[in-house]
Amino acid sequence: MNIFRRSMASVASLKQAGKVVCIGRNYADHITELNSARPKQPFFFLKPTSSLLLPGAGPVIRPKGVDLHYEVELALILGKQVKDLAADDEKGAFDAIEHYALSIDMTARNIQNEAKKKGLPWSIAKGFDTFLPISNLIEKSAIPNPHSVDIYLTVNDKVQQSDSTELMLFQIPRMLSDISKVFTLEKGDIILTGTPKGVGPVVPGDVMRAGIKINGKELEESKIEVA
Amino acid sequence: MNIFRRSMASVASLKQAGKVVCIGRNYADHITELNSARPKQPFFFLKPTSSLLLPGAGPVIRPKGVDLHYEVELALILGKQVKDLAADDEKGAFDAIEHYALSIDMTARNIQNEAKKKGLPWSIAKGFDTFLPISNLIEKSAIPNPHSVDIYLTVNDKVQQSDSTELMLFQIPRMLSDISKVFTLEKGDIILTGTPKGVGPVVPGDVMRAGIKINGKELEESKIEVA
Ligand SMILES: [Mg+2]
Ligand SMILES: [Mg+2]
Ligand SMILES: [Mg+2]
Repeated sequence: MNIFRRSMASVASLKQAGKVVCIGRNYADHITELNSARPKQPFFFLKPTSSLLLPGAGPVIRPKGVDLHYEVELALILGKQVKDLAADDEKGAFDAIEHYALSIDMTARNIQNEAKKKGLPWSIAKGFDTFLPISNLIEKSAIPNPHSVDIYLTVNDKVQQSDSTELMLFQIPRMLSDISKVFTLEKGDIILTGTPKGVGPVVPGDVMRAGIKINGKELEESKIEVA
Repeated sequence: MNIFRRSMASVASLKQAGKVVCIGRNYADHITELNSARPKQPFFFLKPTSSLLLPGAGPVIRPKGVDLHYEVELALILGKQVKDLAADDEKGAFDAIEHYALSIDMTARNIQNEAKKKGLPWSIAKGFDTFLPISNLIEKSAIPNPHSVDIYLTVNDKVQQSDSTELMLFQIPRMLSDISKVFTLEKGDIILTGTPKGVGPVVPGDVMRAGIKINGKELEESKIEVA
């Protein structure tokens, strides 16, 4: 019971994160499906912490007129400050990770497409309240190699996304290096590492389930179930 | 002495802000100078709180290859949660403001222009460490009407920006209404209300000074001096 309470406290602490930084276009087949250009270097954007939706905190709210898309992503929760990390400092990168989590980068695709066309920021398309469902915290030791886990997402029990994180174009050390040369990363900051192919729409009533599997075995604390 | 210490503590608390939300294109002449389209409704983006530069905390750091621009802006510091505020709820909007501050929305203009062209997010262009110099907190009572103050910015003592906030296209209640329908705003959140005309580049060694005047009288606590 104590352990349960402690774990609940931890996931609630995510709401106190200083920032959420998301990598865009980090899986080749996802770039193709959105007809996007392949980036020469990682690019990234912010979601507000007010968009976080903790386990059991209710459904994703679809704003009127929004074409709501899911993007399942492995998330990193940092345990220390990272600033100007060298791109080849793998130890520095992995030392900075305190926990993992699974997350869904909910996106108002029609608003994002219009923003892209007009050269406007993505913050609105990515930032609505409830647009960041996240799992319970996953102990770091439960994921020995974050570049070799399978992440999946189903809608009404139909598999829509299911790929290995080995398909990432830019791996975690490179991401943390590039981000930390722009923004100082702080303890508690959350990094979303990009989504594999298979993104698509959900409508009210749809149930999304997502999780992480390692060698076919599902990590219990990675499971997300959200309407 | 106590008062001094208390005021320092307050401005340091800005670093704990949940988020910084910035309005774009909110003064007609600034839209013209950047050849931008006039928005039909307020649009906004996020800067990370890690970009805040408190008074006396050193210079703005210019990343290599960056065309660094200043944008002086009146900032609001919220004292309560705001969610789904009605656009005509002026009382709700003003009640939500706890303090004002002056701020400079430093922008990597070349990175922003490239992001606009490619339809990419603005987060990098707007988010580098030190890209948000901010003044001390200004008591709410010192600004009876935030839509009728003059904000100015000089570079090496030459006036570059100087306009009244009465020129805002969208006033504060409308901004807070539109933002709060996307992101729940929380106590401590910082809102930048847009910049008037006169934005331009600074190079290392340049000294920016900025402030707020009401009927020609400068508000001491609004002053920013930063290299
Ligand atoms: Mg915070
Ligand atoms: Mg994503
Ligand atoms: Mg600005």
